[in-house]
Amino acid sequence: MTRKGILFVISGPSGVGKGTIREAALRKINGVQLSISATTRKPRTGEVDGRDYFFLDASSFKQLIDRDLLLEWAQVYNNFYGTPRQFVDQNINQGKDVLLEIDIQGALQVKKKMPEGIFIFIAPPSLEELACRLITRGKDTAESIEVRLAACKWEMEQIKHYDYRVLNQDLDTAVDTVSSIIIAERCKIKNLNMGCDMIDSSFNQGFNGSGE
Amino acid sequence: MTRKGILFVISGPSGVGKGTIREAALRKINGVQLSISATTRKPRTGEVDGRDYFFLDASSFKQLIDRDLLLEWAQVYNNFYGTPRQFVDQNINQGKDVLLEIDIQGALQVKKKMPEGIFIFIAPPSLEELACRLITRGKDTAESIEVRLAACKWEMEQIKHYDYRVLNQDLDTAVDTVSSIIIAERCKIKNLNMGCDMIDSSFNQGFNGSGE
Repeated sequence: MTRKGILFVISGPSGVGKGTIREAALRKINGVQLSISATTRKPRTGEVDGRDYFFLDASSFKQLIDRDLLLEWAQVYNNFYGTPRQFVDQNINQGKDVLLEIDIQGALQVKKKMPEGIFIFIAPPSLEELACRLITRGKDTAESIEVRLAACKWEMEQIKHYDYRVLNQDLDTAVDTVSSIIIAERCKIKNLNMGCDMIDSSFNQGFNGSGE
Repeated sequence: MTRKGILFVISGPSGVGKGTIREAALRKINGVQLSISATTRKPRTGEVDGRDYFFLDASSFKQLIDRDLLLEWAQVYNNFYGTPRQFVDQNINQGKDVLLEIDIQGALQVKKKMPEGIFIFIAPPSLEELACRLITRGKDTAESIEVRLAACKWEMEQIKHYDYRVLNQDLDTAVDTVSSIIIAERCKIKNLNMGCDMIDSSFNQGFNGSGE
């Protein structure tokens, strides 16, 4: 019996550093496949279809929505972004864990479709710290920072829908903690997919000569 | 609001190496208090009451049993051994995690009294490997090894009552995995004891100036 993979969802307020944590966690942990999003926006130079995104035209994307083939989707300006369920399911059925990094609205949509996923909330050490990061990274206007901090109250309240909270006070510690969560979840008895003897086939073979 | 501690129970078949893993895990992870057993056997040279064991006479021990003050107990030859509940509760209420290393029969007793504990099953990579370890450590007679391997089938089946399985194929990996489980459990939303805002007081203070 092949072990099924686990969907890990890394999420948190805007600017909390979840992208950086995702990249470092992927480098650190073996056997985790990053989820690939679908989008209607045009590929940028160097972007490869099926690696960076699944690039789709608007009508193909709307078909995915209509046929309920997306774990979540959102419209950003004139473009659509979403998470194709098939790619996630395929990897999980092959025993590979899948990592999805997404904002909180997206994570709540995913949770409705795959409640068995493991939802990790990356939290800022404080609101001041988050404001400071948004200002320092320089991607955002003063007004957009204000709107984001207001949205942050609602976002922080959504933590109750998650399984784990990882404080991003120090990047290395946060990455180690996410790695620990992945390692721990892989050892959970309910995730081992063992036979009725509750022992894996290699042990079973050692024990009474018959695999499960 | 003070976070409550977590009881971690490390358990597994005889000879699987759980004692070695327990010692290494205690050195590696901060803030974990080893559970101290009570016993009616006499202290050996160098053993300190309240550090190595709580040394009790038989009538005091039987009082603990009668008053249901032990999480588990067992008689080994003419001596009694048990886990005083008060010591565990005190540490947990002070926010300290407690580590209890115990055989499988004991772990199942503890689970009945503290089902909220985290139960970690240390498993041998194979039965041959376990037999080999029992022979190599030289503490056991051929007959007792045979009895132990027979008991092992029942013991392996009890894994279904546990939360996690850690294979002890390689000591360092097993210790890292136990550490990961402890770190992950500490990040679980349900273990954070957060107020109704679901955000901890430091964040809350940063956010709206009022602690929870």
